[in-house]
Amino acid sequence: MTTAAVHGYTSDKAAYLRRLKRIEGQVRGIARMVDEDQYCIDILTQVAAVNSAMHAVSLGLLENHLQHCVVAAAHEAGTSGSSVAIDAKVKEATQAISRLLR
Amino acid sequence: MTTAAVHGYTSDKAAYLRRLKRIEGQVRGIARMVDEDQYCIDILTQVAAVNSAMHAVSLGLLENHLQHCVVAAAHEAGTSGSSVAIDAKVKEATQAISRLLR
Amino acid sequence: MTTAAVHGYTSDKAAYLRRLKRIEGQVRGIARMVDEDQYCIDILTQVAAVNSAMHAVSLGLLENHLQHCVVAAAHEAGTSGSSVAIDAKVKEATQAISRLLR
Amino acid sequence: MTTAAVHGYTSDKAAYLRRLKRIEGQVRGIARMVDEDQYCIDILTQVAAVNSAMHAVSLGLLENHLQHCVVAAAHEAGTSGSSVAIDAKVKEATQAISRLLR
Repeated sequence: MTTAAVHGYTSDKAAYLRRLKRIEGQVRGIARMVDEDQYCIDILTQVAAVNSAMHAVSLGLLENHLQHCVVAAAHEAGTSGSSVAIDAKVKEATQAISRLLR
Repeated sequence: MTTAAVHGYTSDKAAYLRRLKRIEGQVRGIARMVDEDQYCIDILTQVAAVNSAMHAVSLGLLENHLQHCVVAAAHEAGTSGSSVAIDAKVKEATQAISRLLR
Repeated sequence: MTTAAVHGYTSDKAAYLRRLKRIEGQVRGIARMVDEDQYCIDILTQVAAVNSAMHAVSLGLLENHLQHCVVAAAHEAGTSGSSVAIDAKVKEATQAISRLLR
Repeated sequence: MTTAAVHGYTSDKAAYLRRLKRIEGQVRGIARMVDEDQYCIDILTQVAAVNSAMHAVSLGLLENHLQHCVVAAAHEAGTSGSSVAIDAKVKEATQAISRLLR
């Protein structure tokens, strides 16, 4: 089993890298707008677009993680009969969601 | 198995009801502030407090749901060998999170 | 000049009170759903609806406040020639927005 | 009057450019984490950090904008006696805030 198989987002890796590359370009575009003294509200519109793109990425990663964590924790619970690993994974995921909700 | 056992939040039900009762009172308090022409910024501070309390409730419900969904989907996947039910539950949870992130 | 004239939201007061009354009812509805052991995801959908309604209220209050603060600070700056009052009002409004963004 | 004087954030321009450069680096770091198959939750923590940094930038821009818009609208209202320009500026700012709140 490779590391690649461990994380749920790996099959979509190329898509995530493309989206993050685009976000990086958007942030650079915002810097350019600031540098060129563009209108504040137009800059804020671009900031909102970056926020929105980041939210989409984080929801995708979260969905991949839940799918993986569900499968792995299901497997472990099936063999060990204990829900300790599941509870820890769920707590960890909920805390990540909480940080995304701020 | 009763309906009460189906949903993960049931063991904390009394706590959720107390928190929601408090939030209801906070919303009523905001209406009173508006009615008494109190200072806008003070009203917005109370709105932020309600938002914060609602976020805490939603994270709690989400954690309970993931714990329950994980256990139930793990059980189903263990007996059926299919991950269809897990994927559907994860998709549903992710969409709920997306609505909370707006 | 009455207190009612001081705050910008006063002309919309009846509308705000109606909206807050509706939100109060929505929160009570969520408590009922919890009490009746309804499905977690359906409850979270209602929580998202309350968040959305609260956001609309806060944006309305904020717009009213900025309109009022702009007018009042404009008047003061016009007579005193000082921008201290404007800067304080803007700082206060930005902090309120920050709390709404969490 | 130069363009630089028109927008409120210009005096802090170097600081904004530094912060945006750092955010750009954080986004690139997230892409690297995805590329190296790092743990999903760790990636989400970095996403939350970028969100937080973007919120700080947007609040700063908003504060600068309100300070500028207040001063400019105050000046216009003082000379024209009309609040049309103020109302339009406030509406525009509120819509920008709404997009940031999503």
